[in-house]
Amino acid sequence: MAFDRLIRNIQKMSNPTVAGLDPKLDFIPGFIKERAFAQYGDTLEAAAQALLDFNKGLIDALYDIVPAVKPQCAYYEMYGWQGMHTLQQTIAYAKAKGMFVITDGKRNDIGTTMQAYAAAHLGNVQVNGKELMPFDADALTVNGYLGSDGIAPLLQICKQRDKGIFVLVKTSNPSSGELQDRLLQDDKTVYETIGAMCEEWGSDDVGEQGYSSVGAVVGATYPEQLTELRQKLPHTFFLVPGYGAQGAGARDIAGAFDHNGMGAVINSSRGIMCAYQKQGVDEREYASAARREALRMRDELNSVR
Amino acid sequence: MAFDRLIRNIQKMSNPTVAGLDPKLDFIPGFIKERAFAQYGDTLEAAAQALLDFNKGLIDALYDIVPAVKPQCAYYEMYGWQGMHTLQQTIAYAKAKGMFVITDGKRNDIGTTMQAYAAAHLGNVQVNGKELMPFDADALTVNGYLGSDGIAPLLQICKQRDKGIFVLVKTSNPSSGELQDRLLQDDKTVYETIGAMCEEWGSDDVGEQGYSSVGAVVGATYPEQLTELRQKLPHTFFLVPGYGAQGAGARDIAGAFDHNGMGAVINSSRGIMCAYQKQGVDEREYASAARREALRMRDELNSVR
Repeated sequence: MAFDRLIRNIQKMSNPTVAGLDPKLDFIPGFIKERAFAQYGDTLEAAAQALLDFNKGLIDALYDIVPAVKPQCAYYEMYGWQGMHTLQQTIAYAKAKGMFVITDGKRNDIGTTMQAYAAAHLGNVQVNGKELMPFDADALTVNGYLGSDGIAPLLQICKQRDKGIFVLVKTSNPSSGELQDRLLQDDKTVYETIGAMCEEWGSDDVGEQGYSSVGAVVGATYPEQLTELRQKLPHTFFLVPGYGAQGAGARDIAGAFDHNGMGAVINSSRGIMCAYQKQGVDEREYASAARREALRMRDELNSVR
Repeated sequence: MAFDRLIRNIQKMSNPTVAGLDPKLDFIPGFIKERAFAQYGDTLEAAAQALLDFNKGLIDALYDIVPAVKPQCAYYEMYGWQGMHTLQQTIAYAKAKGMFVITDGKRNDIGTTMQAYAAAHLGNVQVNGKELMPFDADALTVNGYLGSDGIAPLLQICKQRDKGIFVLVKTSNPSSGELQDRLLQDDKTVYETIGAMCEEWGSDDVGEQGYSSVGAVVGATYPEQLTELRQKLPHTFFLVPGYGAQGAGARDIAGAFDHNGMGAVINSSRGIMCAYQKQGVDEREYASAARREALRMRDELNSVR
C-alpha cells in the first residue's frame, strides 16, 4: 500500500513534511535562469530547463531529511508542454533519490476519462504493445465533485500499482467554505460528506499502518475542521497544505496527527523553495537555505505531534 | 466577449455542435499509427504524432461545418509531455482554421495556483521579459469546489484576453448526483448553488448576445436538470456533454436552448471521431465519415432547437 511506503519514509526521517515544488520563474535564483536563457533564449524551453535545475538543487539538498515532494502541476503547465517535460523529469529524479512523489493535479472527470488521467499520472499506457509510464508519480490529488465513477478508475490503479490518491475535502483557501462548509439536510457539511466518501472508497485497500490508499486534502488554515476530520476519518491519510506562506503555524497543525503522531504529511512550498530570500542569503545558497528551513520546520512539527 | 465569438460561429454554420477531440490510440486508424510507429518506434513521441495526424484530419474535415472543438486534456496527458505537445499543436491548428477551442481540463486550485493554470491555458507567461502563450485556448472547463478565489484569476484573464470558462455544474456521469443532487438547508441542490455562483461570477462581463464569460457544464443525460438550469441561469452559456456515446439523444438536448435556439453548444466526441467504425467504412475514410456524422448531428440538433 502506497501510504505505508510514505509512512515508513516519515518514520525513518522523523519528519512529516512534504516539500512543495511550485517553481515559478519569479522564485528561481537569477544565476539559474541566466544560464538557461543563454542556452535556449527567451523560450519555454529555457523556462523548463531553469525549473528543472532549480528542482534538482532542492531535491539534492532535501532527499535525506524530507520524505516526500509535491510538484504542483499548474506551475509546470504554465510553461507549456516543455514545462510538463520538466514535471516528468522532476518526478523521476525525486523517485530515484528515494522520495515519495505526490503530483498535485486536482484532476477530475467522468469514469472513462478518469481512466486516462489515472494512466497518465499513476499508471501506464500501451503504445504498439509496449508499456510506457507517462508521469508515474506515487500519488495524485483529485477532486471528488463528480462522485464515485470518477474515482473508481483510480482505486483500481492504486491496488494494481501500489499508488495513492488524495481527494479534496476541506481546502486551505479563504473561500473554501462557500460550498464546502454548507450544511446538507442531514446536518452534515459538504466537506464532511466528501470525507465520509473517502473512508468508503478506501475501505477495500487498507495498509498495515491502518490507512487506506484514499487520502484527503485538508487545509491547516482551518484547524478546527482538521481536528474534526482526523477524528471522523480514522483510515484516511491527510495531505495538509496551508502551513507557512498561507498563514498556518505549527499549533494549527497539531490536530492533523493521530495518537501515534502519524496520519498526515504537512506541505510547505514557498517556505522551503524561497527560504534563501527570507534568510537574506546569497541566491547561490538557495539549496542550503531550503535545507535549513526544512530542518527548522521538522523540529517545529515534531514539537506538536 | 469570447462566447459572442462562439455564438457567431454557431449562427454562421447553423450548428450548435462542438466536436470532442479525445484521441486515444484505440480510436485512431491503423494506417496513421503504423506511419508514426515506423518513424518514432514504440514511444510516446509516436503516440503523440499519431494523435496529431488524426486530429488534423478531423479538423480539416470539420472546420467549415462545426464551429468549435473540445480537446480533452486527459487524452493528451495520457501520452506524457509529448501528448501535451500535441494538445498545443492541435489548439493552434484548430484556431488557424477559425474554430473556437475549448480545452476540457476541469482545472481547479487555490487563487495563486489558479493564476498559473489561467496563464497556462488561456493567458501568457513572461520569460525574460518576453510574452509567450503556453496553450492559448479560447475557453477552459473548471471545477468550482474551491469557491470564488479559485475562480477570480480566470475572470480577470477572461476580460483581459477575450476568453471564457465553463464551470462544472451538473455533470453527465451516472454518479454525478452523489454530491451534486444533494439538497442544502435552503432547499437548493449543490448543482443549483454552483449554477447560481456562475451567474454571479459572470455578472461583470456580459456580452452582446446576453451571455457572460462564465459558462456551465450541464450534462444532456439529465434533461430535467438541463431544462431547469436553462431557465434559472439566463446569462450562463452551456457546454453540454453526454450526447451520443453516453446515451442522450436530441430530444434530451432540447431544454438546453433559449427561446432563440441559442445558449448551448452540444458535444460529441466518440460519435464523430469513431464514425468510421459505426458506418463500417474503410479506416482511411475516417475524416469523411466524421463529416457525415457531424452533418447528421447538426440536422438532428436543429430539428429540436
